[in-house]
Amino acid sequence: MHEAAFQEMYPKEYNHCYGCGCLNEHGLHIKTYWSGEESVTLYLPKPYHKAFPGYVYGGIIASLIDCHSIGTASAAVARFLKHEEFVRFVTASLHVDYLRPTPLGVTLEIRGTVEEVKENKVIVNSLLFAEREICAKGRVVAARMPRKMLLLSAAEGDNVARR
Amino acid sequence: MHEAAFQEMYPKEYNHCYGCGCLNEHGLHIKTYWSGEESVTLYLPKPYHKAFPGYVYGGIIASLIDCHSIGTASAAVARFLKHEEFVRFVTASLHVDYLRPTPLGVTLEIRGTVEEVKENKVIVNSLLFAEREICAKGRVVAARMPRKMLLLSAAEGDNVARR
Repeated sequence: MHEAAFQEMYPKEYNHCYGCGCLNEHGLHIKTYWSGEESVTLYLPKPYHKAFPGYVYGGIIASLIDCHSIGTASAAVARFLKHEEFVRFVTASLHVDYLRPTPLGVTLEIRGTVEEVKENKVIVNSLLFAEREICAKGRVVAARMPRKMLLLSAAEGDNVARR
Repeated sequence: MHEAAFQEMYPKEYNHCYGCGCLNEHGLHIKTYWSGEESVTLYLPKPYHKAFPGYVYGGIIASLIDCHSIGTASAAVARFLKHEEFVRFVTASLHVDYLRPTPLGVTLEIRGTVEEVKENKVIVNSLLFAEREICAKGRVVAARMPRKMLLLSAAEGDNVARR
């Protein structure tokens, strides 16, 4: 049985994200799942996602931690606050410490823990592993998607769908 | 006269970065210049660099602030510490506060100021503007590229060049 990733639970009208949107044909398609109390993302960077030959670009690492954490925020609200629908969060702040160079060519594993979960705010801490070594750690404060953005984005999404 | 961007001054063997490397054919090609005491990057995100329809993906904003700041670090050492060669820095930490949704379809402007410049450590603070409104602010601690990484990367770069 295929267990749906958090990002596959997003409403279609908000599922265009370059990092994780199922409907973005150019995107990274980051996917996150529960593993017990932790959330887990596995991702194999493309050969051109490099900082230097042999090492992963920091912006890709930031993107992985971002979408992983925002997905975890939605899933945490569904799981711990018993929401039926999968509400969308946006990034209020993103912090990444790059602890050692991240090797290119291996699948990266991001493991997240939920520090705080409220209706409108979730904090997720993450560790990024390559070959079982911690290469980066991240902290994301996720905010419930503002209503104005929701409406504007939905209207734009409708326009996109009609084109 | 064409003024070289900071990233065009990087040694060729370390110029493969997905965010700003001149030699990465799939990359974003972020370019940064001095404007008085500030460093400036202009970038028009691709239509698919979206978070939601109409808004820019946060991971792209993080990438812009990252490469902008790392380029500024190299340039600051050259300018203020009078280094002749353009030494390479890597990201030790990246912090981004997303202050408002960033509209897609307009050229973004990132303006950076150097808070601290030492041989091995530079701190850069940045503001990201869209249509003259501040949408995000960033803080990057840049560390001189570790010698081990330099050697490994150069060796890998030679291999890449030979293939």
